[in-house]
Amino acid sequence: MGMTMTQKILAAHAGLDNVKAGQLIRAKLDMVLGNDVTTPVAIKEFKAAGFEKVFDKDKVSIVLDHFTPNKDIKSAEHCKMCREFAVERDVTNFYDVGEMGVEHALLPEKGLVAPGEVIIGADSHTCTYGAVGAFSTGVGSTDMAAGMATGEAWFKVPAALKFNLTGKPGKWISGKDVILHIIGMIGVDGALYKSMEFTGDGLKYLSIDDRLTMANMAIEAGGKNGIFEVDDITEAYLKERVSREYTVYTADEDAEYEKVYDIDLSELKPTVAFPHLPENTKTIDQVGEVKIDQCVIGSCTNGRLEDLEKAAEVFKGRHVAKNVRTIIIPATQKIYREAMNEGLFDIFMDAGCVISTPTCGPCLGGHMGILAEGERAISTSNRNFVGRMGHPKSEVYLSSPVVAAASAIKGYICSPDEL
Amino acid sequence: MGMTMTQKILAAHAGLDNVKAGQLIRAKLDMVLGNDVTTPVAIKEFKAAGFEKVFDKDKVSIVLDHFTPNKDIKSAEHCKMCREFAVERDVTNFYDVGEMGVEHALLPEKGLVAPGEVIIGADSHTCTYGAVGAFSTGVGSTDMAAGMATGEAWFKVPAALKFNLTGKPGKWISGKDVILHIIGMIGVDGALYKSMEFTGDGLKYLSIDDRLTMANMAIEAGGKNGIFEVDDITEAYLKERVSREYTVYTADEDAEYEKVYDIDLSELKPTVAFPHLPENTKTIDQVGEVKIDQCVIGSCTNGRLEDLEKAAEVFKGRHVAKNVRTIIIPATQKIYREAMNEGLFDIFMDAGCVISTPTCGPCLGGHMGILAEGERAISTSNRNFVGRMGHPKSEVYLSSPVVAAASAIKGYICSPDEL
Repeated sequence: MGMTMTQKILAAHAGLDNVKAGQLIRAKLDMVLGNDVTTPVAIKEFKAAGFEKVFDKDKVSIVLDHFTPNKDIKSAEHCKMCREFAVERDVTNFYDVGEMGVEHALLPEKGLVAPGEVIIGADSHTCTYGAVGAFSTGVGSTDMAAGMATGEAWFKVPAALKFNLTGKPGKWISGKDVILHIIGMIGVDGALYKSMEFTGDGLKYLSIDDRLTMANMAIEAGGKNGIFEVDDITEAYLKERVSREYTVYTADEDAEYEKVYDIDLSELKPTVAFPHLPENTKTIDQVGEVKIDQCVIGSCTNGRLEDLEKAAEVFKGRHVAKNVRTIIIPATQKIYREAMNEGLFDIFMDAGCVISTPTCGPCLGGHMGILAEGERAISTSNRNFVGRMGHPKSEVYLSSPVVAAASAIKGYICSPDEL
Repeated sequence: MGMTMTQKILAAHAGLDNVKAGQLIRAKLDMVLGNDVTTPVAIKEFKAAGFEKVFDKDKVSIVLDHFTPNKDIKSAEHCKMCREFAVERDVTNFYDVGEMGVEHALLPEKGLVAPGEVIIGADSHTCTYGAVGAFSTGVGSTDMAAGMATGEAWFKVPAALKFNLTGKPGKWISGKDVILHIIGMIGVDGALYKSMEFTGDGLKYLSIDDRLTMANMAIEAGGKNGIFEVDDITEAYLKERVSREYTVYTADEDAEYEKVYDIDLSELKPTVAFPHLPENTKTIDQVGEVKIDQCVIGSCTNGRLEDLEKAAEVFKGRHVAKNVRTIIIPATQKIYREAMNEGLFDIFMDAGCVISTPTCGPCLGGHMGILAEGERAISTSNRNFVGRMGHPKSEVYLSSPVVAAASAIKGYICSPDEL
């Protein structure tokens, strides 16, 4: 029996010729990631276990992105702990205020993830890097601590689901609509502990930013990881960012998939996930009138340049509805700079938006746009659990940047076609 | 006995020919201001007293600037309360996320304050508008509530101190250095419940932004208000912003001043206020080596365009020291836009700074750069009380934008001349 992309990567990193679903293996790690929420816990575990050094100072990334610039004393203390640890261990990829961005946007941008690599991160959306053909997955802080110390981690080799994407998506359809469609179809546990492998002719219509969005949300279907075949689009993206050698793995023809889903991208409509689960999807024509109080465009899911460009296309020459606070959060300093220099900030500000310094911000109820009781936000982020963006009685609706922008303009959730 | 500028304004608003220091008067208000911290309390008082309408919907300003975009559920609830109140009473000058800026930068920018007017605000730095020849002062939320309802307030007419400014300030000297020098000289209660009236030949070297900075900090010397003579610089500033008629009051020749201070601006040096009081000033040559962890350039004191331009002059072609988080906070959307379009953001980002959306932010320990235990910040804001920017064991040093920028670059407090 052949192996999937994921299985091949894991086998190579475990020094094995072959692995199969369910097998326990110990694999070498190419990168261990943490943020300002999870790293302090990992540091405590690291020290409690008696570790001194990190296994490779170039293979640890610490990104202070969640509550930064710090929102309160507690988060300031957490960042201070990370900073001291990073300086003491000479961690190469330590990103503080001024250099940092949302971790899952920053690592690909900096070329810190590449095809065929194994990356763990103490953040559930670490699965993002499957967009460039890496195996990457979220772990707890204890695993992060052990990973930082030993450079290895235990995994149960995942079984796999194949998503065969065909057809050309319509004008307003992006990776976000594709992944929301999939999660709506299979449910939030539809890929539980499985690989979601994305392939098919339709890939050529999905940019790297689209793929980063999709792989990012694999965890929202319960997936262990999401992974894309490496193609010319991937190679073009990597060429500017990754100078080290990497290995591209392709699935064997006889690789085992528990299920194969065929998805015709040309049939998709803009899709919105209603509270309080990403699986509660409706296509835009089924939404009805849902008034909103806030619009957030950003996060590790949709805070990249292409996302901002698409949003700007919708905002251009228009203005947000009265009393819709619209917060644009470029995911990294580089994205911020590029968007600004392309004139997108002028468009956003003419439209009545504010622009935040890079941060995870409101996505996880951190800061920079928390909701009061009864308020509703449309957001390009990845989770709409109860209380995710603030008050337990607030609501979050997930969408693509163009739907979020159109909704901010109208004041209720709608398609850009309604403008 | 003649009257001071302040006394003349108060007399006119009380319908009296003459007032003198110590007299209790009831004066008409031209503007009543509140923010997201103080307005909710005022709203409760307003409702508890049985008031329904505001006295004049054009003469109330509510600016959501302190904890916005909201940092947590509590601040979101406060903003929601302000928003509902403003909508129900049709408050003209309600500034929410997307339109708002730091209140004391926003009101002058919008032309909402003018010479000869009486303004109260539920924020201690409401004294800022004396820069354009208005009488303005901070009040409690109860006074704000009564002011919103009745359009009047009780005042004890203040005695006055005269600051006679002469000479031309040196290259790195700005209004911030002048006011820090004064507070260092007279102490934090040196002007207790008095008017600080600024006059003299030296005024022609002080821009409106300089004057706004100085009037802003009158309260840091205990002043009831700070007020500048209206001159050509004032009129040029107002011409673009204020279309309604206003009255310029000048002090009588025989106005009574408890004390007159002569200050030669040409003799001033860059000045820094050490923790934990604004009166703890040292000139830059007396500072010694004080390492810093954070630099904040912004606030109602020094977040205006000229402040950012001066900081950029220092940052240009240079980079902040390792581990100095440097946060630039343009005080309003307009300032943000202008600074961006002048290319200042490129300079700041090349230097390793981050740029925040307009907010009071860390100045009052709100968010967007709170300090951990033992950390030190240099800040262009107005207060360095214990715990002002975070942990009770953190420290804040107050300075001008150019000194703050130079210090961020060196990593310790210094003059731009040291670069």
